[in-house]
Amino acid sequence: MSLKLIIYTLGNLLICLAGTMLFPLGVAIYYRINIGEAPNDLVAFIISAAITLITGLTLRLSLRERQEELGIREGFAVVALAWVTVALFGALPYQLAGIFHIDGRSPWTAFSFSYFESMAGFSTTGATVLTEIEHLSHAMLFWRSFTHWLGGMGIVVLAVAILPMLGIGGMQLFRAEAPGPQTDRLTPRIAQTAKLLWGVYVLLSILEVILLMVGKMPLFDALCHTFGTMATGGFSTKNASIAHYDSVYIDMVICVFMFLAGTNFALHYRALRGNVKAYFQDTEFKFYCTVIAVSITLISWNTIRFHVNGEIPYDSMWTSLRYATFQVLSIITTTGYGTADFEQWPALSQFILITLMFYGGCAGSTGGGMKQVRFLLLIKQSGAEIKRLIFPHAVLPIRVNDQVVPREVMTNILGFFFFFIGIFAIVTCIMTTLGLDLVSAAGATIATMGNIGPGLGSVGPTDNYAHIHTTGKFVLSFCMLLGRLELYTVLILFSPNFWKG
Amino acid sequence: MSLKLIIYTLGNLLICLAGTMLFPLGVAIYYRINIGEAPNDLVAFIISAAITLITGLTLRLSLRERQEELGIREGFAVVALAWVTVALFGALPYQLAGIFHIDGRSPWTAFSFSYFESMAGFSTTGATVLTEIEHLSHAMLFWRSFTHWLGGMGIVVLAVAILPMLGIGGMQLFRAEAPGPQTDRLTPRIAQTAKLLWGVYVLLSILEVILLMVGKMPLFDALCHTFGTMATGGFSTKNASIAHYDSVYIDMVICVFMFLAGTNFALHYRALRGNVKAYFQDTEFKFYCTVIAVSITLISWNTIRFHVNGEIPYDSMWTSLRYATFQVLSIITTTGYGTADFEQWPALSQFILITLMFYGGCAGSTGGGMKQVRFLLLIKQSGAEIKRLIFPHAVLPIRVNDQVVPREVMTNILGFFFFFIGIFAIVTCIMTTLGLDLVSAAGATIATMGNIGPGLGSVGPTDNYAHIHTTGKFVLSFCMLLGRLELYTVLILFSPNFWKG
Repeated sequence: MSLKLIIYTLGNLLICLAGTMLFPLGVAIYYRINIGEAPNDLVAFIISAAITLITGLTLRLSLRERQEELGIREGFAVVALAWVTVALFGALPYQLAGIFHIDGRSPWTAFSFSYFESMAGFSTTGATVLTEIEHLSHAMLFWRSFTHWLGGMGIVVLAVAILPMLGIGGMQLFRAEAPGPQTDRLTPRIAQTAKLLWGVYVLLSILEVILLMVGKMPLFDALCHTFGTMATGGFSTKNASIAHYDSVYIDMVICVFMFLAGTNFALHYRALRGNVKAYFQDTEFKFYCTVIAVSITLISWNTIRFHVNGEIPYDSMWTSLRYATFQVLSIITTTGYGTADFEQWPALSQFILITLMFYGGCAGSTGGGMKQVRFLLLIKQSGAEIKRLIFPHAVLPIRVNDQVVPREVMTNILGFFFFFIGIFAIVTCIMTTLGLDLVSAAGATIATMGNIGPGLGSVGPTDNYAHIHTTGKFVLSFCMLLGRLELYTVLILFSPNFWKG
Repeated sequence: MSLKLIIYTLGNLLICLAGTMLFPLGVAIYYRINIGEAPNDLVAFIISAAITLITGLTLRLSLRERQEELGIREGFAVVALAWVTVALFGALPYQLAGIFHIDGRSPWTAFSFSYFESMAGFSTTGATVLTEIEHLSHAMLFWRSFTHWLGGMGIVVLAVAILPMLGIGGMQLFRAEAPGPQTDRLTPRIAQTAKLLWGVYVLLSILEVILLMVGKMPLFDALCHTFGTMATGGFSTKNASIAHYDSVYIDMVICVFMFLAGTNFALHYRALRGNVKAYFQDTEFKFYCTVIAVSITLISWNTIRFHVNGEIPYDSMWTSLRYATFQVLSIITTTGYGTADFEQWPALSQFILITLMFYGGCAGSTGGGMKQVRFLLLIKQSGAEIKRLIFPHAVLPIRVNDQVVPREVMTNILGFFFFFIGIFAIVTCIMTTLGLDLVSAAGATIATMGNIGPGLGSVGPTDNYAHIHTTGKFVLSFCMLLGRLELYTVLILFSPNFWKG
C-alpha cells in the first residue's frame, strides 16, 4: 500500500477539478456581462478554482518522484477517496458564495448543506437541500448540474472498467465486456476504455441537448437537464423539476435518455460500432426492459382504476401512461426527476416505485441501486435451489449471457445484497434518532443509498433535505458514497486488514 | 411419487386430529354442566370430531394396503398438505358453531374467517379475525389456543428432525443435531426424535402452567397462555392480551418461556440430559441472546428519552425496561403477545421491532421468521467477502459451531433470503390492491409470513384482521403456511419437476 501514490493521484484529480470549474466561471462571466447577475458567485468560483488548483498542485508536486503503477489496493483507496475529496472541493463554490448562509446558522451547519449538495451532485444522487432552486444564479445552477455530469463520467469508467477488475459484488462477470485493448496492465487499459466510453457519453449528451432544444427548451436548461439525465442525477433548474415544462415531447425525450443512461454503456459502445444486436443478446438488458414494462403497465392500470381520497388520480389511459412511464424510468434508473407527486398515487403504485428504488439500473450504467443483473442472478439462484431440492445430486449452473456464473460470484452477490439491506436498516435506525419519522427515515436512506434523490414522507418528491439534522446530512452523504461505489469499495477501507502490509 | 401414500398419511393425521378435538369437547361439557355455557359449541365439537374422524378413516382404510415408507418427495408433499388439511378440519368448530356468522355475510365469507383463524392457530401465527375475543365460550377459546400447541408440536419435530433431512434453506447444517438414534431410515428416526422432543415440549409446558398459576392466573387462562407461549403462537383469552393481567411476575414468566420457545429444542434436550453447557457452546444461541440484549437496551433507552406527540412514553427506567423486554421477546420469538401498543413508541423502537419481525427465532425452535442462524451466516459471509477482496486467493471458510459451512449451503440460504424478501414484496403488492394502505399491507404480510400475528397500521397490536378482504384472508393464510414451512416446502409443490417421475 503506497499512501504517497494515492495522494499523488488525488492531486492530479484536483487539478482536473479546478479545470472543470472554469466552465461555471465562464457561465458566471457571461451572465454578469449580459444581465448583471450575482458578482458574488463569480468571485466564489475564482477562489474555489484557485484553492482546488493550488491544493492539487501541492499534492502532486510534493510527491512527483513516484512513478509506480496503481495496484488493486491503491485502486480501492483512490476510488473511495476521490469521491470524498472531489465532493469536498466541489462544495467550495456553494460555501464561498454563501448559498446556505442565513443569520444564526453556524458555518459548520452551512458547510453540512454545501457538502450534502456537492456529494448529491458528484454521486449523481440529486437529493437537494435547497428550498428555492430558482433563486440561484445561472452559474450556480450550472455548477450543480455539471457536478452530476462529471460524476457520471467517473461512474461510467468505474462501472465498466474498474469495478469488474476489482471484483466487486459480482461485477467481475463483466470483466471481458469493457471496450478497448485487452491488456494486463491496469492503468493504460483503464485510460483507453475511459476515452471510448467518454466518447459515447459525450455523443449521447450532445444528442439530448439538441433534441431538448427542438422541444423549445432554452439552451441553458437543455444543458443542465442533459447533465442530470445522462448521469441519472436528477438536479433540475426548476422547483417543479420536469413538470415545469409540462410538455409530452420533453417528457418523452428525457424518458428515452434516462432509459439509455440506465443501460450498460458497453452495449452502447458496441451499438455505435454497428453491433445493434448486442442489446438483444444481453440477458440483463432484456430483464431491465421487462421490469420496466411490467412496472409501467401495473402503475398505469392502478392509477386509472384505484381511488385515492375518493378520486382516481388520472382520468385517461394516456395521461396515466405518460406519468407512469416517466416516474418508472426516473426511479429505476435512479435519476429522480419528477413530473408527478407519486405520494398521491394509490398504495400499489407507491410500493412498486419503492421496490424499484432498490432495483436500480444495469451494471455498467450511470444508474445506482443494487443493479438489475444482481436481481436477475438472485432470481435464477433461488429457482435453482428449488430444483436442487428435487434433484439433490444434479449440477445446476446459473448462466448469464451464456456464461456460467461461478459459485463464489453468487456468494459475492449474496454478500452485497445482505450488506445493502443491512446498511439500509442501520442507517434508517440512525435517522429515526435524528428526529425523522419511520417512513421519512427509510425513504431518505434508500433515496441516498440508491442515488435516487427524492425519497418518501418529509423527503418526498415535493420536499427536500434541508430540514435534516446536521449529523444526518453527513450520514446521508456517506450513504450516497456507499451506494455509488457499490458498498465494498468504501467498506473495505474500514477493514484493518486492508491497511496492513 | 406415491400419491396414495400421501393420502394414507394425511388420513392418519386426521384421525389424530379428531382425537385432539376431544379436549375442547371435554371443556365444553365441563362448562355446560357447571355454568350452562354455549350448548351450540358442544354440538359443533361433536360434529367436527365426527367429520374429521370419518374422513380420516375413509382415507386410511381405502388405502390400507400401502406399506412402503415415505421418501423425500412424499415427505415434502405430506408436510405442506398436512398443515393445509389440518387447518381446514380445524376450522370446522368455528364454522359449525357460527362464530363468524352475522346477518348478510355469505357462508363463504364466514369460512374465510374460520380458515384464517384456524391457520393462524396451527401455524402458530396468532393473527386473529375476532373483534371480541372475550365473547367466545371457554371451549372455543381453549380450541383456539390448543391449535397453537398442536401446531407447535408439529413444528418442533419439523424444525429439528425433518427440515434438516430435506435440506431446506441451510437447515441441513443441523442434520446431526436431532436427538435419538442415528439411522438412515427416515420414519423410525423421526418417530424416535419426535418422542424425545415432545417430552421436552410437554415438560416445559407443565412448568409454565404451574408458574403462571403461582402468579394467581386461573388454570384455564394459564393453560391457554401456555399453549400460546410454548408454540410462539400468541392467541390470548383476553382482548387486551397479557396486558390484561398487568402483573410484573406474569410478564416475567411469559418472557422466560417465550425465550425458551424461541431456542433450539435440541439444546433443551441436551440440557435436560445434564449438558447445560450446550447452550453456551452454540453459536446461534449466543447470537440470539446478543440480538435480544441489544434490542432491549436500545428500545429502553429510546422510550425514556424520545418524545412521541410531546410526551415520553415511559417515565422510569424499570417501566421502559419491562415493556421493552416483553415486546422484544414477543416479536423476536414471533409469539405476538402484547403488553404495550408499540405503535405509540418512538420511530427507532418501532423500526427495531419491525426488523426483528424478519429475524425470528432460532432454528429448531417453534419460532418463525427467517431464523437467527441464517442472519448469522449472512453476516459472516458478508464479512468474508470483504476479506476476499483484500486477499483474492485466500480460502475463507465460514464456520458455525466449529463446522465449516459448505458453499452450497450459503447459496441455499441466499435463495431463502431472497425468496423471503421477494414473496414479502409480491404479497404486499397484492394486499395493496385489496384495499390496504402501504404500512398495513406490509405489516400484514410480514406478520403472517413471519408467523408473528399482530402487524402494523390497521392490523397493528390493538387491531385485528377482520376487516381484510376475503381474498386477502386466503392470501395471508397462505403466507402463514409459507413462512411456517420455511418457504421451500410449499414452493416446491408448484414446480412441475416435482410431480414428474
